[in-house]
Amino acid sequence: MSRVAYVNGQYLRHRDAYVHIEDRGYQFADGIYEVCLVIDGSYWDYEGHMARMERSLNALHIRMPMGLAALKLVMQEVVKRNRLQNALVYMQVTRGVAKRNHAFPKNGATPALILTAQRFDLDQSDSQAERGVSVITVPDIRWRRVDIKTVGLLPNVLAKQAANEAGAAEAWQVRDGFVTEGSSSNAWIVNDKGVLITHPKTNDILGGITRETAIACAHDLQIKVEERPFTVEEAIRAAEAFITSATNLVMPVVEIDGQKVANGAPGPIAAKLRDAYKVRAKRG
Amino acid sequence: MSRVAYVNGQYLRHRDAYVHIEDRGYQFADGIYEVCLVIDGSYWDYEGHMARMERSLNALHIRMPMGLAALKLVMQEVVKRNRLQNALVYMQVTRGVAKRNHAFPKNGATPALILTAQRFDLDQSDSQAERGVSVITVPDIRWRRVDIKTVGLLPNVLAKQAANEAGAAEAWQVRDGFVTEGSSSNAWIVNDKGVLITHPKTNDILGGITRETAIACAHDLQIKVEERPFTVEEAIRAAEAFITSATNLVMPVVEIDGQKVANGAPGPIAAKLRDAYKVRAKRG
Repeated sequence: MSRVAYVNGQYLRHRDAYVHIEDRGYQFADGIYEVCLVIDGSYWDYEGHMARMERSLNALHIRMPMGLAALKLVMQEVVKRNRLQNALVYMQVTRGVAKRNHAFPKNGATPALILTAQRFDLDQSDSQAERGVSVITVPDIRWRRVDIKTVGLLPNVLAKQAANEAGAAEAWQVRDGFVTEGSSSNAWIVNDKGVLITHPKTNDILGGITRETAIACAHDLQIKVEERPFTVEEAIRAAEAFITSATNLVMPVVEIDGQKVANGAPGPIAAKLRDAYKVRAKRG
Repeated sequence: MSRVAYVNGQYLRHRDAYVHIEDRGYQFADGIYEVCLVIDGSYWDYEGHMARMERSLNALHIRMPMGLAALKLVMQEVVKRNRLQNALVYMQVTRGVAKRNHAFPKNGATPALILTAQRFDLDQSDSQAERGVSVITVPDIRWRRVDIKTVGLLPNVLAKQAANEAGAAEAWQVRDGFVTEGSSSNAWIVNDKGVLITHPKTNDILGGITRETAIACAHDLQIKVEERPFTVEEAIRAAEAFITSATNLVMPVVEIDGQKVANGAPGPIAAKLRDAYKVRAKRG
């Protein structure tokens, strides 16, 4: 089956899905994106993803290319046309096409919108969660507004590539001695009192939607959450560690820089949180 | 006359110049670029731009999409097909098209190459140099590898936009109290002893090709150059200030954050350097 993408008003075969070379997303990384998980027709954390999309666009003074209701219809149509039951829907909005010049186009531009969908295998993700993943640490060299979910992802690409080359699934980025977050996920540890610790929402992390929902789940479960930075040493000595993202849900981390976290097996709190997340995220 | 662009092996009408939505330049800013000035068929600072292009690609582990001799032919053909005498040639290379995933594509990818050309008006630039330009200062919030000339330019876009909104031509970025560089140019001052001062080449500035040639010109003119960071206060108190880039050549700065530099008129050293630059850059 050939994949289908949505590009600026048209549903196109994926291989025919093109944007202009002077789309500012291509020449300036002048755009934002969201990834939303769809399981059995339910859009997980939908409200959160849409709110963040609007926040990212506002931060860059880019208009929403269409209303949220219309966008939901496009999301559903892309999933349907790709005949997917469980999917990751990718949405990207850029400032649009304009003659190359750093500043915003003087006469404005029509924001560009593309959507793609790819199959998501929840069972595979669950199996991975039973084994856990390894992470490495790398210096956080990103810009100081990573709270905006822009397509300027090259540092994240280099971090993820470094992780993969080291046989790890993710790279935790370290700034001034503290773990900020992964290259495409938020980073968490559980201390010996069963308290969850994760970096506070500042301009130095992306305010993860899965992170927010996981915090809400922790409250439901009466698990205490401390939003504060932690060091790599603290993480290696932790009772548990895990990452959160739309793609990973809640994913246990069993090794950091080649050193086992606790006994090297996924911990009970991450597992409990993952289960709770699945229930809560479904509500939208 | 309709413009012509080069896109992955084809010369296309500019309005038909498209790349795939999963070109990693579009979704990850995973690519680099160069801008080269062509005056009367001569490619200014050609060797320098090509060397930097190779350096940027090496830093990101992206292959050169074609040999330098072939690329020169494409550059010439793009200029010719656009019937330009004086032009800015824009070249962009990305890691190519691959299914979306942060890490480098496992099976490799064919690097994408696009070229465009736009008219460059040297007389207009000379007139501007006789008046000088204003700059503002903004915090330097970019990543720590701006020495690689990537298309991840969103912070530069925001800085340039801030400058334009303030009625200025450029924004000087300030890190830890020191001016690093402009959003698309290097920053210079001249002290009261006639010594040129500009930020040293580190990971925190782009090693400008025009900057390098300007240093060589200064040596020819027996003008001393100090490569060291300077503060905004030092710049406002300077005898002269200017910026360098392929597009600006050597461009006097007459105002910083609304405060006149010296008497608010372009200085003699910047003018002398601009003249010398024109002669030297032409050699290629």
